[in-house]
Amino acid sequence: MVRREPQQHLKIANYLREEIRTGRLAAGDFLPSEAELCEQFHTSRGPVRQAMAALRSEGKISSSRGRRSVILGDFNAESFEATYSVYARYQESGITPDQHILWLARRPATAAAAESLRLKEGDPIVFVHRVRSFAGENRVIQEHYFPLNIGRHILDYEESDGSLHAVLTARGVDFDNISRILEFGLASQEDGELLGINEGDPLCVTRQMIHDHNGNPVEYSIFKFRADHLQLSMSTVRGAMSPLRISLISPEN
Amino acid sequence: MVRREPQQHLKIANYLREEIRTGRLAAGDFLPSEAELCEQFHTSRGPVRQAMAALRSEGKISSSRGRRSVILGDFNAESFEATYSVYARYQESGITPDQHILWLARRPATAAAAESLRLKEGDPIVFVHRVRSFAGENRVIQEHYFPLNIGRHILDYEESDGSLHAVLTARGVDFDNISRILEFGLASQEDGELLGINEGDPLCVTRQMIHDHNGNPVEYSIFKFRADHLQLSMSTVRGAMSPLRISLISPEN
Repeated sequence: MVRREPQQHLKIANYLREEIRTGRLAAGDFLPSEAELCEQFHTSRGPVRQAMAALRSEGKISSSRGRRSVILGDFNAESFEATYSVYARYQESGITPDQHILWLARRPATAAAAESLRLKEGDPIVFVHRVRSFAGENRVIQEHYFPLNIGRHILDYEESDGSLHAVLTARGVDFDNISRILEFGLASQEDGELLGINEGDPLCVTRQMIHDHNGNPVEYSIFKFRADHLQLSMSTVRGAMSPLRISLISPEN
Repeated sequence: MVRREPQQHLKIANYLREEIRTGRLAAGDFLPSEAELCEQFHTSRGPVRQAMAALRSEGKISSSRGRRSVILGDFNAESFEATYSVYARYQESGITPDQHILWLARRPATAAAAESLRLKEGDPIVFVHRVRSFAGENRVIQEHYFPLNIGRHILDYEESDGSLHAVLTARGVDFDNISRILEFGLASQEDGELLGINEGDPLCVTRQMIHDHNGNPVEYSIFKFRADHLQLSMSTVRGAMSPLRISLISPEN
Protein backbone atom coordinates (compact mmCIF):
# COMPACT_ATOMS: atom_id res chain seq x y z
CA MET A 1 0.00 0.00 0.00
CA VAL A 2 1.16 3.48 -0.86
CA ARG A 3 0.61 5.86 2.04
CA ARG A 4 -1.66 8.60 0.72
CA GLU A 5 -1.48 12.13 2.13
CA PRO A 6 -4.73 14.11 1.96
CA GLN A 7 -4.45 15.53 -1.56
CA GLN A 8 -3.34 19.15 -1.82
CA HIS A 9 -6.05 20.20 -4.28
CA LEU A 10 -8.75 18.89 -1.92
CA LYS A 11 -7.23 20.85 0.99
CA ILE A 12 -7.16 24.05 -1.06
CA ALA A 13 -10.72 23.54 -2.38
CA ASN A 14 -12.05 22.90 1.13
CA TYR A 15 -10.24 25.98 2.45
CA LEU A 16 -11.83 28.16 -0.26
CA ARG A 17 -15.30 26.60 0.25
CA GLU A 18 -15.07 27.40 3.95
CA GLU A 19 -13.94 30.99 3.25
CA ILE A 20 -16.99 31.43 1.00
CA ARG A 21 -19.39 29.62 3.35
CA THR A 22 -18.47 31.86 6.26
CA GLY A 23 -18.56 35.00 4.10
CA ARG A 24 -14.86 35.85 4.63
CA LEU A 25 -14.85 35.71 0.82
CA ALA A 26 -18.15 37.35 -0.21
CA ALA A 27 -19.95 37.69 -3.55
CA GLY A 28 -18.08 40.25 -5.66
CA ASP A 29 -14.70 39.75 -3.92
CA PHE A 30 -11.70 38.65 -5.94
CA LEU A 31 -10.40 35.14 -5.36
CA PRO A 32 -6.81 35.09 -4.00
CA SER A 33 -4.34 34.85 -6.90
CA GLU A 34 -2.77 31.55 -7.94
CA ALA A 35 0.58 32.80 -6.64
CA GLU A 36 -0.89 33.66 -3.22
CA LEU A 37 -2.52 30.23 -2.90
CA CYS A 38 0.70 28.49 -4.04
CA GLU A 39 2.62 30.29 -1.31
CA GLN A 40 0.00 29.70 1.37
CA PHE A 41 -0.16 25.94 0.67
CA HIS A 42 3.53 25.47 -0.29
CA THR A 43 2.53 23.92 -3.57
CA SER A 44 2.88 24.27 -7.33
CA ARG A 45 0.18 25.70 -9.61
CA GLY A 46 -1.31 22.32 -10.57
CA PRO A 47 -3.20 21.63 -7.31
CA VAL A 48 -4.26 25.31 -7.05
CA ARG A 49 -5.74 25.19 -10.57
CA GLN A 50 -7.46 21.88 -9.84
CA ALA A 51 -9.06 23.37 -6.70
CA MET A 52 -10.19 26.44 -8.65
CA ALA A 53 -11.70 24.18 -11.35
CA ALA A 54 -13.67 22.32 -8.65
CA LEU A 55 -15.11 25.59 -7.28
CA ARG A 56 -15.95 26.70 -10.80
CA SER A 57 -17.85 23.47 -11.49
CA GLU A 58 -19.83 24.15 -8.28
CA GLY A 59 -20.74 27.62 -9.56
CA LYS A 60 -18.95 29.40 -6.68
CA ILE A 61 -16.41 31.47 -8.66
CA SER A 62 -16.51 33.11 -12.10
CA SER A 63 -14.71 31.88 -15.21
CA SER A 64 -10.95 31.90 -15.78
CA ARG A 65 -10.77 33.79 -19.04
CA GLY A 66 -7.52 35.62 -18.42
CA ARG A 67 -8.78 37.59 -15.44
CA ARG A 68 -8.92 37.09 -11.68
CA SER A 69 -11.95 35.04 -10.75
CA VAL A 70 -14.66 36.70 -8.68
CA ILE A 71 -16.64 35.05 -5.87
CA LEU A 72 -20.22 34.42 -7.04
CA GLY A 73 -21.77 33.21 -3.81
CA ASP A 74 -22.24 30.24 -1.55
CA PHE A 75 -24.33 28.09 -3.85
CA ASN A 76 -25.15 24.93 -2.02
CA ALA A 77 -23.92 22.06 -4.10
CA GLU A 78 -24.92 18.64 -2.79
CA SER A 79 -22.45 16.08 -1.52
CA PHE A 80 -22.10 12.95 -3.62
CA GLU A 81 -23.89 10.98 -0.88
CA ALA A 82 -26.94 13.24 -1.12
CA THR A 83 -27.43 12.25 -4.77
CA TYR A 84 -28.51 8.72 -3.78
CA SER A 85 -29.37 8.97 -0.07
CA VAL A 86 -32.49 10.99 0.78
CA TYR A 87 -31.39 10.68 4.41
CA ALA A 88 -28.03 12.36 3.64
CA ARG A 89 -29.69 15.06 1.53
CA TYR A 90 -32.04 16.20 4.26
CA GLN A 91 -29.55 15.74 7.07
CA GLU A 92 -27.29 18.22 5.25
CA SER A 93 -30.19 20.69 5.49
CA GLY A 94 -30.58 20.02 9.20
CA ILE A 95 -33.65 17.78 8.78
CA THR A 96 -33.77 14.18 10.02
CA PRO A 97 -36.43 12.42 7.97
CA ASP A 98 -38.69 9.72 9.39
CA GLN A 99 -39.46 6.59 7.43
CA HIS A 100 -42.09 3.91 7.15
CA ILE A 101 -40.92 0.67 5.52
CA LEU A 102 -43.70 -1.03 3.53
CA TRP A 103 -41.76 -3.92 2.00
CA LEU A 104 -38.31 -5.36 2.58
CA ALA A 105 -38.13 -8.48 0.45
CA ARG A 106 -35.92 -10.96 -1.28
CA ARG A 107 -37.81 -11.32 -4.55
CA PRO A 108 -37.37 -11.95 -8.29
CA ALA A 109 -36.12 -8.98 -10.36
CA THR A 110 -38.65 -7.09 -12.48
CA ALA A 111 -37.65 -6.47 -16.11
CA ALA A 112 -36.66 -2.83 -15.37
CA ALA A 113 -34.63 -3.74 -12.26
CA ALA A 114 -32.94 -6.64 -14.06
CA GLU A 115 -31.90 -4.40 -16.93
CA SER A 116 -30.50 -1.69 -14.62
CA LEU A 117 -28.66 -4.21 -12.43
CA ARG A 118 -27.49 -6.25 -15.46
CA LEU A 119 -29.23 -9.38 -14.16
CA LYS A 120 -31.77 -11.69 -15.75
CA GLU A 121 -35.46 -11.04 -15.16
CA GLY A 122 -36.45 -13.24 -12.23
CA ASP A 123 -32.96 -13.38 -10.68
CA PRO A 124 -33.17 -12.90 -6.88
CA ILE A 125 -32.74 -9.31 -5.70
CA VAL A 126 -33.46 -7.39 -2.50
CA PHE A 127 -36.27 -4.85 -2.72
CA VAL A 128 -37.00 -2.05 -0.22
CA HIS A 129 -40.19 0.02 -0.51
CA ARG A 130 -40.61 2.88 1.92
CA VAL A 131 -42.13 6.31 2.48
CA ARG A 132 -40.18 9.26 3.85
CA SER A 133 -41.77 12.02 5.90
CA PHE A 134 -40.70 15.39 7.27
CA ALA A 135 -42.58 17.34 9.89
CA GLY A 136 -45.31 14.71 9.92
CA GLU A 137 -46.01 14.93 6.18
CA ASN A 138 -45.21 12.13 3.72
CA ARG A 139 -43.03 13.56 0.95
CA VAL A 140 -41.14 10.84 -0.95
CA ILE A 141 -41.86 7.23 -1.95
CA GLN A 142 -38.63 5.26 -2.40
CA GLU A 143 -38.15 1.94 -4.17
CA HIS A 144 -34.66 0.39 -3.99
CA TYR A 145 -33.44 -2.66 -5.90
CA PHE A 146 -30.13 -4.29 -4.88
CA PRO A 147 -28.28 -7.29 -6.31
CA LEU A 148 -28.58 -10.10 -3.77
CA ASN A 149 -24.89 -10.02 -2.75
CA ILE A 150 -25.37 -6.39 -1.67
CA GLY A 151 -28.96 -6.48 -0.47
CA ARG A 152 -28.28 -9.44 1.86
CA HIS A 153 -26.53 -6.96 4.20
CA ILE A 154 -29.82 -5.18 4.93
CA LEU A 155 -32.33 -8.03 5.26
CA ASP A 156 -32.55 -7.17 8.97
CA TYR A 157 -32.62 -3.37 8.42
CA GLU A 158 -35.07 -1.58 10.72
CA GLU A 159 -36.81 1.78 10.47
CA SER A 160 -34.80 3.08 13.43
CA ASP A 161 -31.43 2.16 11.89
CA GLY A 162 -30.93 5.55 10.20
CA SER A 163 -29.50 5.75 6.70
CA LEU A 164 -29.80 2.54 4.66
CA HIS A 165 -26.81 3.64 2.58
CA ALA A 166 -24.69 4.32 5.65
CA VAL A 167 -25.35 0.72 6.74
CA LEU A 168 -24.29 -0.56 3.30
CA THR A 169 -21.21 1.67 3.16
CA ALA A 170 -20.16 0.37 6.58
CA ARG A 171 -20.44 -3.15 5.12
CA GLY A 172 -17.97 -2.16 2.39
CA VAL A 173 -20.37 -1.44 -0.50
CA ASP A 174 -18.68 0.97 -2.94
CA PHE A 175 -21.13 3.66 -4.17
CA ASP A 176 -18.82 5.38 -6.69
CA ASN A 177 -20.89 6.98 -9.42
CA ILE A 178 -24.51 7.60 -10.25
CA SER A 179 -26.56 8.53 -13.27
CA ARG A 180 -29.98 10.01 -12.64
CA ILE A 181 -33.01 10.71 -14.77
CA LEU A 182 -35.74 13.11 -13.57
CA GLU A 183 -39.18 13.29 -15.10
CA PHE A 184 -42.54 14.69 -14.14
CA GLY A 185 -45.39 12.31 -13.51
CA LEU A 186 -48.86 12.19 -12.08
CA ALA A 187 -49.71 10.34 -8.88
CA SER A 188 -51.45 6.99 -9.23
CA GLN A 189 -54.17 6.16 -6.74
CA GLU A 190 -51.60 4.21 -4.67
CA ASP A 191 -49.03 7.06 -4.83
CA GLY A 192 -51.75 9.47 -3.73
CA GLU A 193 -52.70 7.33 -0.74
CA LEU A 194 -49.06 6.95 0.34
CA LEU A 195 -48.29 10.67 0.00
CA GLY A 196 -51.61 12.05 1.19
CA ILE A 197 -52.34 13.76 -2.11
CA ASN A 198 -54.92 13.23 -4.86
CA GLU A 199 -54.63 10.84 -7.77
CA GLY A 200 -53.34 12.92 -10.70
CA ASP A 201 -51.40 15.39 -8.55
CA PRO A 202 -47.90 16.17 -9.90
CA LEU A 203 -44.85 14.12 -8.91
CA CYS A 204 -41.16 14.51 -9.65
CA VAL A 205 -39.93 10.99 -10.39
CA THR A 206 -36.19 10.30 -10.29
CA ARG A 207 -34.47 7.07 -11.24
CA GLN A 208 -30.96 6.37 -9.99
CA MET A 209 -28.47 3.89 -11.42
CA ILE A 210 -25.51 3.55 -9.06
CA HIS A 211 -22.26 1.77 -9.86
CA ASP A 212 -19.02 0.89 -8.12
CA HIS A 213 -15.59 2.16 -9.24
CA ASN A 214 -15.35 -0.57 -11.88
CA GLY A 215 -18.78 0.20 -13.33
CA ASN A 216 -20.65 -2.74 -11.75
CA PRO A 217 -24.26 -1.95 -10.72
CA VAL A 218 -24.77 -1.73 -6.95
CA GLU A 219 -28.29 -0.27 -6.82
CA TYR A 220 -31.22 0.84 -8.92
CA SER A 221 -33.76 3.11 -7.24
CA ILE A 222 -36.90 5.11 -8.02
CA PHE A 223 -37.89 8.12 -5.89
CA LYS A 224 -41.29 9.77 -6.26
CA PHE A 225 -41.25 13.25 -4.73
CA ARG A 226 -44.36 15.36 -4.23
CA ALA A 227 -43.72 18.06 -6.82
CA ASP A 228 -45.30 20.81 -4.75
CA HIS A 229 -42.73 22.56 -2.56
CA LEU A 230 -39.82 20.90 -4.36
CA GLN A 231 -37.11 23.09 -5.80
CA LEU A 232 -34.09 22.22 -7.93
CA SER A 233 -31.27 24.75 -8.14
CA MET A 234 -27.94 24.84 -9.89
CA SER A 235 -25.11 27.23 -10.73
CA THR A 236 -22.89 26.90 -13.79
CA VAL A 237 -19.86 28.89 -14.92
CA ARG A 238 -18.52 29.39 -18.44
CA GLY A 239 -15.73 26.93 -19.15
CA ALA A 240 -17.43 24.12 -17.21
CA MET A 241 -19.95 21.85 -18.91
CA SER A 242 -23.33 21.62 -17.17
CA PRO A 243 -23.79 18.00 -16.12
CA LEU A 244 -27.57 18.53 -15.95
CA ARG A 245 -29.09 17.86 -19.34
CA ILE A 246 -32.64 19.03 -20.10
CA SER A 247 -34.03 17.24 -23.12
CA LEU A 248 -37.24 16.63 -24.97
CA ILE A 249 -38.37 13.06 -25.09
CA SER A 250 -40.52 12.10 -28.01
CA PRO A 251 -44.09 11.04 -27.25
CA GLU A 252 -43.33 7.56 -28.61
CA ASN A 253 -40.72 6.81 -25.92
CA MET B 1 -2.01 41.62 -24.45
CA VAL B 2 -0.51 38.31 -23.45
CA ARG B 3 -0.74 35.79 -26.28
CA ARG B 4 -2.68 32.84 -24.90
CA GLU B 5 -2.08 29.35 -26.23
CA PRO B 6 -5.10 27.02 -26.06
CA GLN B 7 -4.74 25.65 -22.54
CA GLN B 8 -3.27 22.17 -22.24
CA HIS B 9 -5.91 20.86 -19.85
CA LEU B 10 -8.69 21.88 -22.26
CA LYS B 11 -6.91 20.08 -25.12
CA ILE B 12 -6.54 16.91 -23.08
CA ALA B 13 -10.16 17.04 -21.85
CA ASN B 14 -11.47 17.55 -25.40
CA TYR B 15 -9.32 14.66 -26.65
CA LEU B 16 -10.75 12.34 -23.97
CA ARG B 17 -14.34 13.54 -24.57
CA GLU B 18 -13.94 12.75 -28.27
CA GLU B 19 -12.46 9.30 -27.53
CA ILE B 20 -15.50 8.55 -25.36
CA ARG B 21 -18.03 10.10 -27.77
CA THR B 22 -16.78 7.96 -30.65
CA GLY B 23 -16.60 4.83 -28.51
CA ARG B 24 -12.83 4.36 -28.92
CA LEU B 25 -12.94 4.52 -25.12
CA ALA B 26 -16.05 2.53 -24.18
CA ALA B 27 -17.89 2.03 -20.88
CA GLY B 28 -15.82 -0.34 -18.72
CA ASP B 29 -12.47 0.51 -20.37
CA PHE B 30 -9.66 1.93 -18.28
CA LEU B 31 -8.72 5.54 -18.82
CA PRO B 32 -5.11 5.96 -20.09
CA SER B 33 -2.74 6.46 -17.13
CA GLU B 34 -1.56 9.91 -16.07
CA ALA B 35 1.94 9.00 -17.29
CA GLU B 36 0.65 8.00 -20.73
CA LEU B 37 -1.32 11.23 -21.09
CA CYS B 38 1.67 13.30 -19.90
CA GLU B 39 3.83 11.70 -22.59
CA GLN B 40 1.22 12.02 -25.31
CA PHE B 41 0.66 15.74 -24.63
CA HIS B 42 4.29 16.58 -23.59
CA THR B 43 3.03 18.02 -20.34
CA SER B 44 3.33 17.73 -16.58
CA ARG B 45 0.73 16.03 -14.34
CA GLY B 46 -1.13 19.25 -13.43
CA PRO B 47 -3.00 19.73 -16.73
CA VAL B 48 -3.66 15.96 -17.00
CA ARG B 49 -5.24 15.93 -13.54
CA GLN B 50 -7.27 19.05 -14.32
CA ALA B 51 -8.63 17.39 -17.48
CA MET B 52 -9.49 14.23 -15.55
CA ALA B 53 -11.30 16.32 -12.90
CA ALA B 54 -13.39 17.95 -15.64
CA LEU B 55 -14.43 14.56 -17.06
CA ARG B 56 -15.24 13.37 -13.55
CA SER B 57 -17.47 16.40 -12.91
CA GLU B 58 -19.30 15.52 -16.16
CA GLY B 59 -19.87 11.96 -14.90
CA LYS B 60 -17.85 10.38 -17.74
CA ILE B 61 -15.14 8.57 -15.69
CA SER B 62 -15.16 6.93 -12.26
CA SER B 63 -13.58 8.34 -9.10
CA SER B 64 -9.89 8.73 -8.41
CA ARG B 65 -9.59 6.83 -5.16
CA GLY B 66 -6.13 5.36 -5.70
CA ARG B 67 -7.12 3.25 -8.71
CA ARG B 68 -7.19 3.76 -12.48
CA SER B 69 -10.41 5.48 -13.48
CA VAL B 70 -12.87 3.54 -15.62
CA ILE B 71 -14.93 4.98 -18.49
CA LEU B 72 -18.59 5.24 -17.40
CA GLY B 73 -20.19 6.27 -20.67
CA ASP B 74 -20.89 9.17 -22.96
CA PHE B 75 -23.21 11.12 -20.71
CA ASN B 76 -24.29 14.19 -22.59
CA ALA B 77 -23.42 17.16 -20.46
CA GLU B 78 -24.72 20.47 -21.80
CA SER B 79 -22.48 23.27 -22.99
CA PHE B 80 -22.53 26.43 -20.88
CA GLU B 81 -24.42 28.22 -23.69
CA ALA B 82 -27.22 25.63 -23.53
CA THR B 83 -27.94 26.56 -19.90
CA TYR B 84 -29.35 29.96 -20.93
CA SER B 85 -30.06 29.61 -24.67
CA VAL B 86 -32.91 27.27 -25.62
CA TYR B 87 -31.74 27.71 -29.22
CA ALA B 88 -28.24 26.41 -28.35
CA ARG B 89 -29.68 23.54 -26.28
CA TYR B 90 -31.81 22.16 -29.07
CA GLN B 91 -29.30 22.88 -31.81
CA GLU B 92 -26.84 20.65 -29.90
CA SER B 93 -29.47 17.89 -30.22
CA GLY B 94 -29.81 18.50 -33.95
CA ILE B 95 -33.12 20.40 -33.64
CA THR B 96 -33.56 23.97 -34.89
CA PRO B 97 -36.44 25.45 -32.93
CA ASP B 98 -38.95 27.91 -34.42
CA GLN B 99 -40.10 30.93 -32.50
CA HIS B 100 -42.99 33.32 -32.30
CA ILE B 101 -42.23 36.65 -30.64
CA LEU B 102 -45.21 38.05 -28.74
CA TRP B 103 -43.65 41.13 -27.17
CA LEU B 104 -40.36 42.93 -27.63
CA ALA B 105 -40.56 46.05 -25.51
CA ARG B 106 -38.69 48.73 -23.69
CA ARG B 107 -40.69 48.90 -20.50
CA PRO B 108 -40.45 49.56 -16.76
CA ALA B 109 -38.95 46.73 -14.65
CA THR B 110 -41.33 44.57 -12.63
CA ALA B 111 -40.39 44.06 -8.97
CA ALA B 112 -38.99 40.55 -9.66
CA ALA B 113 -36.98 41.67 -12.69
CA ALA B 114 -35.66 44.73 -10.84
CA GLU B 115 -34.48 42.60 -7.94
CA SER B 116 -32.73 40.07 -10.19
CA LEU B 117 -31.10 42.76 -12.33
CA ARG B 118 -30.25 44.92 -9.27
CA LEU B 119 -32.28 47.83 -10.61
CA LYS B 120 -35.10 49.86 -9.11
CA GLU B 121 -38.68 48.84 -9.84
CA GLY B 122 -39.81 50.93 -12.81
CA ASP B 123 -36.29 51.42 -14.23
CA PRO B 124 -36.33 50.94 -18.03
CA ILE B 125 -35.49 47.43 -19.20
CA VAL B 126 -35.91 45.44 -22.41
CA PHE B 127 -38.44 42.61 -22.28
CA VAL B 128 -38.80 39.77 -24.78
CA HIS B 129 -41.76 37.37 -24.58
CA ARG B 130 -41.79 34.49 -27.04
CA VAL B 131 -42.93 30.91 -27.63
CA ARG B 132 -40.62 28.19 -28.96
CA SER B 133 -41.87 25.30 -31.06
CA PHE B 134 -40.39 22.07 -32.36
CA ALA B 135 -41.99 19.93 -35.05
CA GLY B 136 -44.97 22.25 -35.17
CA GLU B 137 -45.75 21.93 -31.43
CA ASN B 138 -45.34 24.80 -28.97
CA ARG B 139 -43.10 23.63 -26.12
CA VAL B 140 -41.58 26.52 -24.18
CA ILE B 141 -42.71 30.02 -23.20
CA GLN B 142 -39.71 32.31 -22.65
CA GLU B 143 -39.64 35.67 -20.86
CA HIS B 144 -36.33 37.57 -20.94
CA TYR B 145 -35.49 40.73 -19.00
CA PHE B 146 -32.35 42.71 -19.91
CA PRO B 147 -30.87 45.88 -18.43
CA LEU B 148 -31.38 48.66 -20.99
CA ASN B 149 -27.67 48.96 -21.89
CA ILE B 150 -27.72 45.31 -22.97
CA GLY B 151 -31.27 45.02 -24.30
CA ARG B 152 -30.84 48.04 -26.60
CA HIS B 153 -28.77 45.76 -28.88
CA ILE B 154 -31.82 43.65 -29.72
CA LEU B 155 -34.61 46.20 -30.11
CA ASP B 156 -34.62 45.33 -33.85
CA TYR B 157 -34.30 41.55 -33.30
CA GLU B 158 -36.49 39.53 -35.68
CA GLU B 159 -37.87 36.00 -35.49
CA SER B 160 -35.64 34.93 -38.38
CA ASP B 161 -32.43 36.20 -36.72
CA GLY B 162 -31.65 32.86 -35.01
CA SER B 163 -30.31 32.82 -31.44
CA LEU B 164 -31.00 35.98 -29.43
CA HIS B 165 -27.98 35.19 -27.26
CA ALA B 166 -25.71 34.73 -30.26
CA VAL B 167 -26.71 38.26 -31.38
CA LEU B 168 -25.90 39.64 -27.91
CA THR B 169 -22.61 37.73 -27.65
CA ALA B 170 -21.60 39.15 -31.06
CA ARG B 171 -22.28 42.61 -29.61
CA GLY B 172 -19.82 41.89 -26.80
CA VAL B 173 -22.20 40.91 -23.98
CA ASP B 174 -20.36 38.69 -21.48
CA PHE B 175 -22.53 35.77 -20.33
CA ASP B 176 -20.14 34.28 -17.72
CA ASN B 177 -22.12 32.46 -15.07
CA ILE B 178 -25.68 31.47 -14.33
CA SER B 179 -27.72 30.31 -11.40
CA ARG B 180 -30.94 28.47 -12.12
CA ILE B 181 -33.96 27.46 -10.08
CA LEU B 182 -36.37 24.79 -11.36
CA GLU B 183 -39.83 24.27 -9.94
CA PHE B 184 -43.01 22.54 -11.02
CA GLY B 185 -46.06 24.59 -11.74
CA LEU B 186 -49.49 24.32 -13.29
CA ALA B 187 -50.41 26.08 -16.51
CA SER B 188 -52.54 29.23 -16.22
CA GLN B 189 -55.23 29.77 -18.81
CA GLU B 190 -52.81 31.99 -20.81
CA ASP B 191 -49.98 29.44 -20.55
CA GLY B 192 -52.37 26.74 -21.75
CA GLU B 193 -53.44 28.76 -24.76
CA LEU B 194 -49.83 29.53 -25.72
CA LEU B 195 -48.68 25.92 -25.35
CA GLY B 196 -51.80 24.20 -26.65
CA ILE B 197 -52.44 22.41 -23.35
CA ASN B 198 -55.14 22.66 -20.71
CA GLU B 199 -55.21 25.06 -17.79
CA GLY B 200 -53.80 23.11 -14.83
CA ASP B 201 -51.53 20.86 -16.91
CA PRO B 202 -48.02 20.48 -15.43
CA LEU B 203 -45.18 22.83 -16.33
CA CYS B 204 -41.49 22.85 -15.45
CA VAL B 205 -40.65 26.47 -14.68
CA THR B 206 -37.00 27.54 -14.67
CA ARG B 207 -35.67 30.93 -13.65
CA GLN B 208 -32.21 31.99 -14.80
CA MET B 209 -30.04 34.72 -13.30
CA ILE B 210 -27.06 35.38 -15.57
CA HIS B 211 -24.04 37.49 -14.68
CA ASP B 212 -20.86 38.72 -16.33
CA HIS B 213 -17.36 37.83 -15.11
CA ASN B 214 -17.49 40.55 -12.45
CA GLY B 215 -20.85 39.43 -11.11
CA ASN B 216 -22.98 42.15 -12.74
CA PRO B 217 -26.44 40.98 -13.89
CA VAL B 218 -26.82 40.72 -17.67
CA GLU B 219 -30.15 38.89 -17.91
CA TYR B 220 -33.02 37.47 -15.90
CA SER B 221 -35.26 34.95 -17.66
CA ILE B 222 -38.17 32.63 -16.98
CA PHE B 223 -38.80 29.55 -19.12
CA LYS B 224 -42.01 27.54 -18.86
CA PHE B 225 -41.56 24.09 -20.39
CA ARG B 226 -44.40 21.66 -21.00
CA ALA B 227 -43.57 19.04 -18.38
CA ASP B 228 -44.79 16.14 -20.49
CA HIS B 229 -42.00 14.68 -22.61
CA LEU B 230 -39.35 16.63 -20.70
CA GLN B 231 -36.45 14.72 -19.17
CA LEU B 232 -33.62 15.91 -16.94
CA SER B 233 -30.57 13.70 -16.64
CA MET B 234 -27.30 13.94 -14.77
CA SER B 235 -24.27 11.87 -13.84
CA THR B 236 -22.19 12.42 -10.72
CA VAL B 237 -19.00 10.77 -9.49
CA ARG B 238 -17.72 10.40 -5.93
CA GLY B 239 -15.24 13.15 -5.14
CA ALA B 240 -17.16 15.75 -7.15
CA MET B 241 -19.96 17.74 -5.54
CA SER B 242 -23.29 17.62 -7.36
CA PRO B 243 -24.08 21.19 -8.42
CA LEU B 244 -27.77 20.25 -8.71
CA ARG B 245 -29.47 20.76 -5.38
CA ILE B 246 -32.89 19.21 -4.73
CA SER B 247 -34.56 20.85 -1.77
CA LEU B 248 -37.86 21.11 -0.03
CA ILE B 249 -39.37 24.55 0.05
CA SER B 250 -41.71 25.27 2.86
CA PRO B 251 -45.35 25.98 1.96
CA GLU B 252 -45.00 29.54 3.32
CA ASN B 253 -42.46 30.55 0.65
